[in-house]
Amino acid sequence: MKENMQVQLASTPESQPQPEHFALVKGVMPQAGDQQVLCETLYLSLDPYMRSQIAGRHMSGSVNPGDVMRGETVSKVIESNHADFNVGDVVRCFAGWQNYSVHDGDSIFKVKKEIDNPSYALSALGMPGLTAYAGMIWQAQPKAGDVVVIPAAIGGVGSVAGQLAKIHGCTVIGIAGTDEKCDYAVKNLGYDACINRKKGDLGEQLDALCPNGIDIFFDLVGGEMLNTVSERLAVGARVILCGLMADYNKTTRSMGPPPAMWIKARAIVYGLVVYDFEPRRAEFVDACVNYINEGKLIVREDVAQGLAAAPEAFCRLMRGENMGKAVVKV
Amino acid sequence: MKENMQVQLASTPESQPQPEHFALVKGVMPQAGDQQVLCETLYLSLDPYMRSQIAGRHMSGSVNPGDVMRGETVSKVIESNHADFNVGDVVRCFAGWQNYSVHDGDSIFKVKKEIDNPSYALSALGMPGLTAYAGMIWQAQPKAGDVVVIPAAIGGVGSVAGQLAKIHGCTVIGIAGTDEKCDYAVKNLGYDACINRKKGDLGEQLDALCPNGIDIFFDLVGGEMLNTVSERLAVGARVILCGLMADYNKTTRSMGPPPAMWIKARAIVYGLVVYDFEPRRAEFVDACVNYINEGKLIVREDVAQGLAAAPEAFCRLMRGENMGKAVVKV
Repeated sequence: MKENMQVQLASTPESQPQPEHFALVKGVMPQAGDQQVLCETLYLSLDPYMRSQIAGRHMSGSVNPGDVMRGETVSKVIESNHADFNVGDVVRCFAGWQNYSVHDGDSIFKVKKEIDNPSYALSALGMPGLTAYAGMIWQAQPKAGDVVVIPAAIGGVGSVAGQLAKIHGCTVIGIAGTDEKCDYAVKNLGYDACINRKKGDLGEQLDALCPNGIDIFFDLVGGEMLNTVSERLAVGARVILCGLMADYNKTTRSMGPPPAMWIKARAIVYGLVVYDFEPRRAEFVDACVNYINEGKLIVREDVAQGLAAAPEAFCRLMRGENMGKAVVKV
Repeated sequence: MKENMQVQLASTPESQPQPEHFALVKGVMPQAGDQQVLCETLYLSLDPYMRSQIAGRHMSGSVNPGDVMRGETVSKVIESNHADFNVGDVVRCFAGWQNYSVHDGDSIFKVKKEIDNPSYALSALGMPGLTAYAGMIWQAQPKAGDVVVIPAAIGGVGSVAGQLAKIHGCTVIGIAGTDEKCDYAVKNLGYDACINRKKGDLGEQLDALCPNGIDIFFDLVGGEMLNTVSERLAVGARVILCGLMADYNKTTRSMGPPPAMWIKARAIVYGLVVYDFEPRRAEFVDACVNYINEGKLIVREDVAQGLAAAPEAFCRLMRGENMGKAVVKV
């Protein structure tokens, strides 16, 4: 008989999560009821926001010790009691960190046929891509010549945001945590430059690269970096507030930049929550499928093999050691 | 012969400015050159941003000890070598804190004939009014039913912003520093409620008055109040960053709210600098002249008599003791 292996939260980490904060357990095999479908997980997305869920601070709810870790997946329908879904359909759903899950028809979504590689529905053509598209295209509205700064330059959101800005004729400066990532950003993703934030003074390097100030900052980090960048905004700048990586492993929240910086720049600052843009997902997928097919949008995934590898892969993500969007092939 | 009395900065205050930080001196009588006009000051505007100029922190430049204090005035042309201006014309200009000033033709602007009371060109129909109009109407775009919070509720900017929000069908909650001001805001300006920030806990009072959160915050204060309000924003909130009263008498700058608050609210935050909206001044004056004539926009000015009274009037403004827009009848 099939087994439903699960990864549960074992204990709440106080700072950097370690594999021992998670436990691989044999869960109950779920049964599809009336109007429900049973799904087998193909790919699991690992995302920084999960650190907030573990800490009990995320708007989508908390994950407590003993709970199965939550997360978006690409899954295959293996049993269907719902007229809209057939066995074999590939769907997006929030199955969590486990092999099998049951869903109502309104909480699963067929992966578009145009998406050849199903894991892409979790990366560049999924939630991270939609986040990048919403913030960069719908909110920041890049113009040719804008100077754009992208932290986590090659991560799931950042890599798409940066490439979208390049497609729109911007000068794009990345920030990443290793020379290897910086090289990849410039050589493969087309960034004009990429700063290793662990080498030298970030402010001085930004001053040198952006002598006329920064027009768009897609913030995925918060903390001191948001401050450093906000001091260097050009008049008319747009700042997308989207992630708080700098705070995820802390118990306190960093304050934001002094408002004077944003007044001086006449900045428009947008709080971005990707769920709000779900109604416009098709528009984004259509655009980005084309960019991928045209070779304008390079997708890189950091794929861990097997559910048992998920905890370590998540810890690597939280240490910034992933190269590309973190995904688990379950 | 006429005397050009001036108020100069005598020394830079470290915290609250006092009258002894200023000196009344007899300056040189200026002479109008070719293509210039000589003006006599009628009214001088006193504004919080002047505290920043004294501190050397304002984007418009610094005022150092020995300099004549700067400021916008309504003045009368008393001698003209410029074809566009005649003796007797009433104009807006930046004459500063003195009786007489000389200007080129491109730095003075005739006060519109529709403005009956010339001092209004410095208050509700002048820079503070334009600031309020730009932030509330052009940036925040109030909708009927929005819950709007206005600090410095009866001040030069706040009083206009609050009344504009009422005209657009919003629920408007003021914040002020005395019961007298709060009474005036509710009884005369039509605010739905006004909180005395010196009595009780501001957060709790906002929770009681705004159970569904705050849709628009027109920030004139910064500091802790911006934090307290940002924690209580409704989804889709707009925040106008416009003034930093809380910081003007300090040597350090307050940090802003944790970005998580703005992300959670999907807030759009605008840095507002009124100079950017100068090209749209006529549109604003036309709208607000009508509101005043219809009795929908009440203008209150706190008028000091004579240039010698300006330092004390400015110190009162910085202590929050003015009732309405601070102006000096020179």
